[in-house]
Parts: sequence; C-alpha cells; structure tokens
Amino acid sequence: MKALILFGHGARDGRWREPFDRLASLWREQHSNTPVELAFLEMMQPSLEEAVSSLSAQGATQITVVPVFFGQGGHLRNDFPVLLEDCQKKFPKISLGTTPAVGEDLAVLQAIIDFSTKSI
Amino acid sequence: MKALILFGHGARDGRWREPFDRLASLWREQHSNTPVELAFLEMMQPSLEEAVSSLSAQGATQITVVPVFFGQGGHLRNDFPVLLEDCQKKFPKISLGTTPAVGEDLAVLQAIIDFSTKSI
Repeated sequence: MKALILFGHGARDGRWREPFDRLASLWREQHSNTPVELAFLEMMQPSLEEAVSSLSAQGATQITVVPVFFGQGGHLRNDFPVLLEDCQKKFPKISLGTTPAVGEDLAVLQAIIDFSTKSI
Repeated sequence: MKALILFGHGARDGRWREPFDRLASLWREQHSNTPVELAFLEMMQPSLEEAVSSLSAQGATQITVVPVFFGQGGHLRNDFPVLLEDCQKKFPKISLGTTPAVGEDLAVLQAIIDFSTKSI
C-alpha cells in the first residue's frame, strides 16, 4: 500500500503547524485510500522515523516523502538525506522515496503569484 | 505606484533562494508595471528595509509585503510586525501593507496536494 509523508521544518510556536494540518486534511478528503502523516525535522512531533513507523503499522509498503519547504538549503541537502537513509535502514521492507521540495514546483509558485496578485 | 515585496526567511545556503528568484521572475513576466523585490528576515540580503528603500527609489508609494512562509510562528507573529513598523517609521510617505502567510491560502495548499498526488 502506498502512503504519503508531508515533511516540514517545525517551529517552537505550535500554531506554525496549522497549514500542515490543513494539508493533511485536504489529502485525506481527496485520497481517502492513501494514508498520510506529517513529519517534522525539528521542534515538532512526529519525527520522520515516527511517521514511517506509524504508516508501516497501518500497512504501508511504499512511502513517498514530500518536503514541504520552499528552498533547498542545508536542511534538505544535508540533514534530510541522512534522516531518510537512517529510516530506510530501520524499515528495510518499506520502499521509501522522496521528491524535490514543493517550492521547486511551478504550479505551487504560480499559486503564490496568484495570491500576491489578489493581495496587491 | 504600487509595488510588491516577497518576504522569506533566508538561509545560509545561497541555493535556498532559487525559488524566490523564480517567484520574482514570474511576477515580472506577469506584472511588468508593478515592481517587485525580494526581502529576507535573516541570513540573506536584502533586508525588508533595503527592499522598501529600493522600491521607494523606483517611485513606489504603496507596497504590499507578502510573507512567503508556510506557517505563522514566532517569526511572523513577533519579529515581522516589529520590522514592518520600523520600516513604516523610516518611510512615512509610503503606505506599507501586508497579507497572511502564503501557507494560509487554500489554492497554495491545493497546489501542494496536486504536486504530492503527481509524485506518489
């Protein structure tokens, strides 16, 4: 079974995660057969490993991790691949894949332009 | 004259800003009469004040600052309003406005869902 992890940075202020919770809700409304979990790099729970463990317990065998980041800096280029490799070692039966950061996607950028156009 | 500032967090790795540069290019292609500048909270230039100064020199009188952040945590709830107020004091002739973070916009979130759907 396929599953999705939406992976964000995390922050001290709990309200920071609200858009991530909204993303997970949207996903569940639109893809009720494909489980989703959030995961955070730091300062918020669950960790990537906890999210993989939870999806594994739900029967996932193929998990795609989408980095919900704009830019690809040190966190995504250095920290994230190490985390992902550690998870893959801990869950050898799960096929773990990833994608570019969402900020690399032209449609996401265009939605930001459209939002700015409405706002100005 | 109206103008736009796309305001991001900033990062140590210079490549982090690539999607922000792409956003500014998209804006210029689609709104050639409305100047745009990027600005960063930390670790990258220009600062918000530098961006306001640059747009003011280009003749802007009404500037909208769009926070290109997913979540609204301490940076947007505490640091950003202080920065914006300082800028307003330094440029009293400019009308400075702002918007919610782009992560509050449903179309931006849906674009992330669509990207995830294609990726899984």
